[in-house]
Amino acid sequence: MDRLALHVNGTVQGDPQFVVEGLANLEQAGPQHLSFVARKKLRLQAEESKAGALLVWPELSADLKCHCILVDDPYLAYARISQLFWSARQVASGIHGTALIDHSARVPDTCRIGPQVIIESGVELGEEVELGAGCYVGRGSRIGPRSILRPRVTLYPQASVGSDCLIHSGVVLGADGFGFAPVPDGWVKIAQLGRVVIGDRVEIGANSTIDRGALEDTVIGDDVIIDNLVQIGHNAELGAGSAMAGQSGLAGSAKVGKGVLVGGQSGIGGHISIADNTQFHGQSMVNKSIKEPGVYASGIPVQPASDWRRMVARLKQLSALSDKVSELWSRAKQNKE
Amino acid sequence: MDRLALHVNGTVQGDPQFVVEGLANLEQAGPQHLSFVARKKLRLQAEESKAGALLVWPELSADLKCHCILVDDPYLAYARISQLFWSARQVASGIHGTALIDHSARVPDTCRIGPQVIIESGVELGEEVELGAGCYVGRGSRIGPRSILRPRVTLYPQASVGSDCLIHSGVVLGADGFGFAPVPDGWVKIAQLGRVVIGDRVEIGANSTIDRGALEDTVIGDDVIIDNLVQIGHNAELGAGSAMAGQSGLAGSAKVGKGVLVGGQSGIGGHISIADNTQFHGQSMVNKSIKEPGVYASGIPVQPASDWRRMVARLKQLSALSDKVSELWSRAKQNKE
Amino acid sequence: MDRLALHVNGTVQGDPQFVVEGLANLEQAGPQHLSFVARKKLRLQAEESKAGALLVWPELSADLKCHCILVDDPYLAYARISQLFWSARQVASGIHGTALIDHSARVPDTCRIGPQVIIESGVELGEEVELGAGCYVGRGSRIGPRSILRPRVTLYPQASVGSDCLIHSGVVLGADGFGFAPVPDGWVKIAQLGRVVIGDRVEIGANSTIDRGALEDTVIGDDVIIDNLVQIGHNAELGAGSAMAGQSGLAGSAKVGKGVLVGGQSGIGGHISIADNTQFHGQSMVNKSIKEPGVYASGIPVQPASDWRRMVARLKQLSALSDKVSELWSRAKQNKE
Repeated sequence: MDRLALHVNGTVQGDPQFVVEGLANLEQAGPQHLSFVARKKLRLQAEESKAGALLVWPELSADLKCHCILVDDPYLAYARISQLFWSARQVASGIHGTALIDHSARVPDTCRIGPQVIIESGVELGEEVELGAGCYVGRGSRIGPRSILRPRVTLYPQASVGSDCLIHSGVVLGADGFGFAPVPDGWVKIAQLGRVVIGDRVEIGANSTIDRGALEDTVIGDDVIIDNLVQIGHNAELGAGSAMAGQSGLAGSAKVGKGVLVGGQSGIGGHISIADNTQFHGQSMVNKSIKEPGVYASGIPVQPASDWRRMVARLKQLSALSDKVSELWSRAKQNKE
Repeated sequence: MDRLALHVNGTVQGDPQFVVEGLANLEQAGPQHLSFVARKKLRLQAEESKAGALLVWPELSADLKCHCILVDDPYLAYARISQLFWSARQVASGIHGTALIDHSARVPDTCRIGPQVIIESGVELGEEVELGAGCYVGRGSRIGPRSILRPRVTLYPQASVGSDCLIHSGVVLGADGFGFAPVPDGWVKIAQLGRVVIGDRVEIGANSTIDRGALEDTVIGDDVIIDNLVQIGHNAELGAGSAMAGQSGLAGSAKVGKGVLVGGQSGIGGHISIADNTQFHGQSMVNKSIKEPGVYASGIPVQPASDWRRMVARLKQLSALSDKVSELWSRAKQNKE
Repeated sequence: MDRLALHVNGTVQGDPQFVVEGLANLEQAGPQHLSFVARKKLRLQAEESKAGALLVWPELSADLKCHCILVDDPYLAYARISQLFWSARQVASGIHGTALIDHSARVPDTCRIGPQVIIESGVELGEEVELGAGCYVGRGSRIGPRSILRPRVTLYPQASVGSDCLIHSGVVLGADGFGFAPVPDGWVKIAQLGRVVIGDRVEIGANSTIDRGALEDTVIGDDVIIDNLVQIGHNAELGAGSAMAGQSGLAGSAKVGKGVLVGGQSGIGGHISIADNTQFHGQSMVNKSIKEPGVYASGIPVQPASDWRRMVARLKQLSALSDKVSELWSRAKQNKE
């Protein structure tokens, strides 16, 4: 346990030689586990936990009988320690015999290239890049050192991925943006000539899609985290440290600042800009620029369907209702006078 | 036709030797087709249909001139008969020459393994499992008897799929949950050490994603049906017999009971729980636990954009309006007194 | 530049020999670029642009010092010219050695078939079809002349794609529709026996899914454009020239007319019909048929979370509020009388 404490700059209270066999939640932890107290409210649960050891704030540790690692931020400490019980690597060293690599591609010896991977001409991989089975890396693309692509990720030509990224299965980077000029009998496609450029330390969830730009690039900043089934349109910019939860979307040419948190199933409209550190609840509809950072929301929470039906009916009459109130108000005012 | 009637415990009215060449809807059926009367309201359409034969309630059959199979639930009978006109199998027996199977994997002779399938170390497949072209089964995963994966399904390591499941193309099971601890300059990844565990007789639609758990498992119960592009977050639980329609989402650590029906594009928030047999209309936002089963909704139906704009403006003034009404109300009350 | 002008039926103002090295936006264009004035409002930006040449309306060109191509619709002209700077082809001529093609499939010599492509029995490809790496074309499917599938597109059996289509990576066409008959202990699957039929000149964005029909077909008209992560259910019909933006959905058996525009994250319910030329803003919920073409919306724009919380509370009291106003109104009327 002292090794783990050292890893998170924590102080041991109890037996430094205690052997942690695994991590578990407070409720499920047994005497062989290390657990963590994520919030101070959980004091009681911490005392009742059967965990052999706990990551905990110093001020909460007094009454705990288990071994403790005292830290300033137990949740962060748990995050750091969780990585010790995990191996990011899933592909064997070297290049699998079934991978197809163009002779002009640069693939350092330290890369791990899985079966059925296809690497087209002019691709450049950094040191220790891992490509899971069946990844497709289009011509002229570039992936920075230590980035990992899980099986079946697709990079269109000229995509650029930074270092230390983790990109999950089914992700498509650099497909054509949704750009068309209307004509009477349909649409004329606007060739999408820009690129998609992903920063460093970015994680992208399964089956998410980020389109290439029309003329300029689509740009994802450093330290961005993106959940599953997220859509990012062409020319969009997503600032460093931002997070987009599952099934949220960022429409074309939207400019999102740094440290912005986007709730699940939210949508940010095209051609608008969002201030740094703005937060959106789930299912938000953002159709205007946000200049003032803060927390925003618009989703309507569920009600029993009968109440909901009544509310919807009333909503349609809201203007009429409002007009009535105005008239009553002005009459009341006259009466007073 | 008598063979079909037997298959659904129905009674033939008309010619038992009538030959059914195919199934069709009431409107499109011809004299060679078997059709069905899905609801009792459709009596008139049934009488006007050109179908050669019909699955129908006994009480509706009196005036019908075509051959009939009388059953208690025509829609269910149609479902059962539809399967006779279909073959779930799409892959030839045996193991395709281009499949890559680790020597430590258990693959019974009765399995059907398509081209370019990759099966990693320690995988265990049940009898008669079918893997479509290009499926990737990560190390230590397990798939129960008779389950079918369509082409290009991805299972991360340690995924567990029950028996008799049908998983459609592009599905990703067991990708990392969206778990990160915030730090001033970005995020520290929480290693996702749990598994994804799918029950028996589960169907999962194309390009849906179900993440592995952080510490405990993400658990999908038996007899669950999931449509396309659905997202299920880490540690979530979805009870037996539940259904999630297209593009709906279940956030991390949500606990959904049995027999819950989730409408399309609905979102269930994280860390909440939903009672058995609850139903949600499409586009519902569920951000609090539901303890009382029933039907719930929150989506606002479309209106002409001009009405909508007025409504949105009024909505923003709703508090002011409400305050005005309160004042008018109290004045009126005073006047009365 | 005269060649480009000819391509868009434009008139050169300035030097016809001016060499255009690339395209760029007004703000980013340099002296080597051709740019375009998309809207007449952008007159000032056009004058300030450093672009070497501009696509512009004749009436806006008077004060411009750069070279100009005068056209009636600069945005459309930009679309047409953008294609000259682009190559749709990404796969080498011929059939890659790792492709697996059933002997019964028809693959003209003019096709371009990438590595690891799988073409099952009875497939018919038109002339000059391009299949990117790892595409899977199920048995009996058909793809019309000059259509292009990017890497890792999946066609289930019997899918039909028209000519001149562009289908992006991760798309799944013809997976089973979401059809089940409920039984007390779960669901009985309805075999999905219909096909998916895609018209000519259709573009489908990355990771979108279009299900096959239950009995009849799911039909996408000519000249339809579909963005990323869009879901289209079984038996749905989408009329010619329609457009569906990112993450929108069309539920089963919905019938959408021609020229319909569906905003991002909108959902159109099952079994309803939508008039030609209807438009829906983003995040619309369409749960009833629309007979009158026009612009429709229902999404609520974000507000600061404190305002939003108040609004949500008031919304739940909207019926009570409305009742109060009605009573005040009738009293006021009595007072008047």
